[in-house]
Amino acid sequence: MAEMKDLIQKLEQLDTQNMYGRDFLLTWEKTDAELQAVFTVADALRALREQNISPRIFDSGLAISIFRDNSTRTRFSFASASNLLGLTVQDFDEGKSQVAHGETIRETSNMISFMADVIGIRDDMYIGKGNAYMRQVAAAVQEGYDDGVLKQRPTLVNLQCDIDHPTQSMADLLHLIHHFGGVEQLKGKKIAMSWAYSPSYGKPLSVPQGIIGLMTRMGMEVSLAYPEGYDLMPEVEEVAKRNAAASGGRFTKTHSMEEAFVGADIVYPKSWASYAAMERRTDLYGANDFDGIKALEKELLAENARHQDWECTEAMMQKTRDGKALYLHCLPADITGVSCGQGEVAASVFDRYRAPLYRQAGFKPYVIAAMIFLSKVKNPARTLESLQQRGTSRFVG
Amino acid sequence: MAEMKDLIQKLEQLDTQNMYGRDFLLTWEKTDAELQAVFTVADALRALREQNISPRIFDSGLAISIFRDNSTRTRFSFASASNLLGLTVQDFDEGKSQVAHGETIRETSNMISFMADVIGIRDDMYIGKGNAYMRQVAAAVQEGYDDGVLKQRPTLVNLQCDIDHPTQSMADLLHLIHHFGGVEQLKGKKIAMSWAYSPSYGKPLSVPQGIIGLMTRMGMEVSLAYPEGYDLMPEVEEVAKRNAAASGGRFTKTHSMEEAFVGADIVYPKSWASYAAMERRTDLYGANDFDGIKALEKELLAENARHQDWECTEAMMQKTRDGKALYLHCLPADITGVSCGQGEVAASVFDRYRAPLYRQAGFKPYVIAAMIFLSKVKNPARTLESLQQRGTSRFVG
Amino acid sequence: MAEMKDLIQKLEQLDTQNMYGRDFLLTWEKTDAELQAVFTVADALRALREQNISPRIFDSGLAISIFRDNSTRTRFSFASASNLLGLTVQDFDEGKSQVAHGETIRETSNMISFMADVIGIRDDMYIGKGNAYMRQVAAAVQEGYDDGVLKQRPTLVNLQCDIDHPTQSMADLLHLIHHFGGVEQLKGKKIAMSWAYSPSYGKPLSVPQGIIGLMTRMGMEVSLAYPEGYDLMPEVEEVAKRNAAASGGRFTKTHSMEEAFVGADIVYPKSWASYAAMERRTDLYGANDFDGIKALEKELLAENARHQDWECTEAMMQKTRDGKALYLHCLPADITGVSCGQGEVAASVFDRYRAPLYRQAGFKPYVIAAMIFLSKVKNPARTLESLQQRGTSRFVG
Repeated sequence: MAEMKDLIQKLEQLDTQNMYGRDFLLTWEKTDAELQAVFTVADALRALREQNISPRIFDSGLAISIFRDNSTRTRFSFASASNLLGLTVQDFDEGKSQVAHGETIRETSNMISFMADVIGIRDDMYIGKGNAYMRQVAAAVQEGYDDGVLKQRPTLVNLQCDIDHPTQSMADLLHLIHHFGGVEQLKGKKIAMSWAYSPSYGKPLSVPQGIIGLMTRMGMEVSLAYPEGYDLMPEVEEVAKRNAAASGGRFTKTHSMEEAFVGADIVYPKSWASYAAMERRTDLYGANDFDGIKALEKELLAENARHQDWECTEAMMQKTRDGKALYLHCLPADITGVSCGQGEVAASVFDRYRAPLYRQAGFKPYVIAAMIFLSKVKNPARTLESLQQRGTSRFVG
Repeated sequence: MAEMKDLIQKLEQLDTQNMYGRDFLLTWEKTDAELQAVFTVADALRALREQNISPRIFDSGLAISIFRDNSTRTRFSFASASNLLGLTVQDFDEGKSQVAHGETIRETSNMISFMADVIGIRDDMYIGKGNAYMRQVAAAVQEGYDDGVLKQRPTLVNLQCDIDHPTQSMADLLHLIHHFGGVEQLKGKKIAMSWAYSPSYGKPLSVPQGIIGLMTRMGMEVSLAYPEGYDLMPEVEEVAKRNAAASGGRFTKTHSMEEAFVGADIVYPKSWASYAAMERRTDLYGANDFDGIKALEKELLAENARHQDWECTEAMMQKTRDGKALYLHCLPADITGVSCGQGEVAASVFDRYRAPLYRQAGFKPYVIAAMIFLSKVKNPARTLESLQQRGTSRFVG
Repeated sequence: MAEMKDLIQKLEQLDTQNMYGRDFLLTWEKTDAELQAVFTVADALRALREQNISPRIFDSGLAISIFRDNSTRTRFSFASASNLLGLTVQDFDEGKSQVAHGETIRETSNMISFMADVIGIRDDMYIGKGNAYMRQVAAAVQEGYDDGVLKQRPTLVNLQCDIDHPTQSMADLLHLIHHFGGVEQLKGKKIAMSWAYSPSYGKPLSVPQGIIGLMTRMGMEVSLAYPEGYDLMPEVEEVAKRNAAASGGRFTKTHSMEEAFVGADIVYPKSWASYAAMERRTDLYGANDFDGIKALEKELLAENARHQDWECTEAMMQKTRDGKALYLHCLPADITGVSCGQGEVAASVFDRYRAPLYRQAGFKPYVIAAMIFLSKVKNPARTLESLQQRGTSRFVG
């Protein structure tokens, strides 16, 4: 296993000591070395599994999941990652709990964590809420740990919030690293993160925000395109600007999909609601103004409908480098004529990229497993080495 | 463990190479040797567990379950089988997923399968739908495997569809094999697969179809009885006819419950909706005609009510061989005066057969485990042997 | 591990043979030695886990959970305990089952138990129902075991019924034992089990009943306080009286919260509905009289509202021994100004006891694990010893 040897050597060079015992909430809270460590461990766990070596580090223990929004990919990725490492997922379903009894987040967080090693949370519906909720949970279990209530401090993984979607953007980036043959190859590449039309309403901002916040660190040219009014959170744009300046990349904005696509090596056309609209929705929910929400939804759909030309068509793909940019999507995409009448992408474009798109999604379980691994294991290189030496078969037969 | 030795020797004689990597969707797609292999492995796994030897072959891995209809027995049987082999069940709940976003079956199937070894599906509500859905999922994961999206090809187990209920019929048959002392003892035995009255509506056809499609292969006389109009799918009747001809058995039809029961060694009185009615219901659902469905339900209940005399009473049991036929049911049965006013079977008959009925159900976890085992393990006899030699205790204490 | 040695030695002195293969339904069905054994094993399992030794005794096997009422703490405690011992929780969700088809408890209990080692049940809503249901399930699996339907007899753990909440009261008591430095230190201590005001309706009686039924065995003075009309089940009061007489403790009743608090070493202020009201509610449900239930609810809330002065305030705490009684609650508490306008306890009191309260809850997973362990393991002292010697790491890395 030459590959494993290289990965372990690479990992030894990276300073990961601040990942131990820590949460993974936003990519821009992590150093470059820490992000590299996630990719390296993800590749190593994958190499082990694909050679039928079990990287199980837990004989028992719980991985708590809290999904405040629907999920398929991320739910199964979290379940896969937890299972691979030996943890059992216990879903915290607020509907079946005593949360309705007025229990506080501080209390619930401790009550579910007595034997929890990890907590994964998706909370992406309202601006200003999801990430804040994760930090409340993190503070609660830290306090519980400090008070001797919890004998281990469960670490958190952000499975999508209002600000970032780090397991998605990291999986996307790992896909790019493999596709282009190494992280150095990304330097100077142009990625178009573009808004695209969807007949549905209120898609989270976390994917485009996660992309501009992460890809700008790789020395790439990140071109963010959207119709006027579909702004992202200004503080994340600031992150992107700072990152680009530091990495020798570029971060540009345009209101033309075409401009973003011209010469792009990678395109990521994807719908989202505007920051301003999401803030209004959050306020309306806060006020329990359901008529207001309905009216807002109608207004936003009408606004969306004015931009049906923001579609990743074959003609649009022709503008990209050699007409062959790599097409990315977090899935599921709104495919014109397949999942909706008019959507984000033409069926022929989507179909041509189906296999790489599915491979892109396939990195997520390993990225999550790596995040868990690095927050739990003190010396990750040594542990990987001993897992390889232990050589327990994942499957016997 | 003399028994294990015999089972392993028997298994070595059977050609199971075409089970490796393949799905289990319909019993009549499998050879006689393959069915024998399922029974043999089921008995072997049971023998190991009952001697406190763990037949666990997976250190980690997911078994995906998709239940598009309610289930108790099959759900717990699938969970038990997966757990016994070391897999963790991850239920795919379409309501909590992104399927509503217009995601295709092809995509979803891949997205949930990155670390899946097995997918179990129940989809038995609509004629022409359930088995077709399973084949779409199977094609999707095969394509994903061929494209390098999936590193292992999850194999499918049909947990009941519109056509067959193979885990049920195979468990029923394994029960008969044990009850009568061997598969050879079934030759010439008469089994009455009879419609019976139920006050409920729209029970699937898959149990009676599974029974006539399987029991006709054992050289048995299969007598199918139902009131006029309660026909099964004609293509399955054709399967039964061909099977009976090939096995030296018989397949007959009658519109008299009594005629079927006369001289029977085994009786299987069980309600179902007619094929024609199920087709009409499927069409009405397709057209979202809910008034039409209500009207149909009313009509079918009225039609059912005309056949309340189709009950497995003591008098009816007296017609069977020595009045002592073995009574089978997939459970739960509609028991007259217990679970309903008037139903499929008299309480005294049911009570007399309770213990064997429950034992009948107890074969299902092992049948499912055997189906998984044979689709995953290249050399099943050798693997069973090494599991026995390994001798890991299922329970220490 | 000096502590483990002591615990094992202590366990060897206790007669636990009648726990093997038996259910844990009511604390007063267990001998003093058996309760001591639960505490000892709970401490031993905790010691092992905290020293990173896995006390896993199952390589596979299911722990069935049946929650007929919402739960957070107990659900996660049962999941944690099962996982620690190597069992996989399979939740039996009656809504997704065939129970609606008129299936009997006897049948369902067997159908879900073919590979079940443990069944945990919460059924606390209706007087006369919950504990009775558990006994029906227990009788059913016993019968199945005797008939050869089940190859192992799953043992039951009462996760709260209408009569007792043994996993709660045992966790509470284990907390007291640790807090006061040993079970002998509890002799002569005064505990006030007091009703407290809550703006919600119909809280179960099982916690106060469990407390008076258990704490009276420890030679404690148990003072039960409640407003007139909020009586507990008379048969449980009889248990408390008998226990107190036998243990050299006292069991007193008062209609003054203050009287109970005066000089108390421990206070447990907690709301409940009255026995008479719960009986009326049960009858109304039986008659499907939903208007009657609504009227009853209104009446009870009005009745509750007359006792808003039953609150654990700072002034009330001042009455206790040195003003420093240990405050207990099963959580979540109705905290005045936090989870409700006016509730069971003042925020400043609750806040001061938060850490010990959370630690109190942290005993439950180990108490449940100990109950399972003692019902499954023939020689618990020897098994603990060999688990320690085996020394499998719970977490490697």
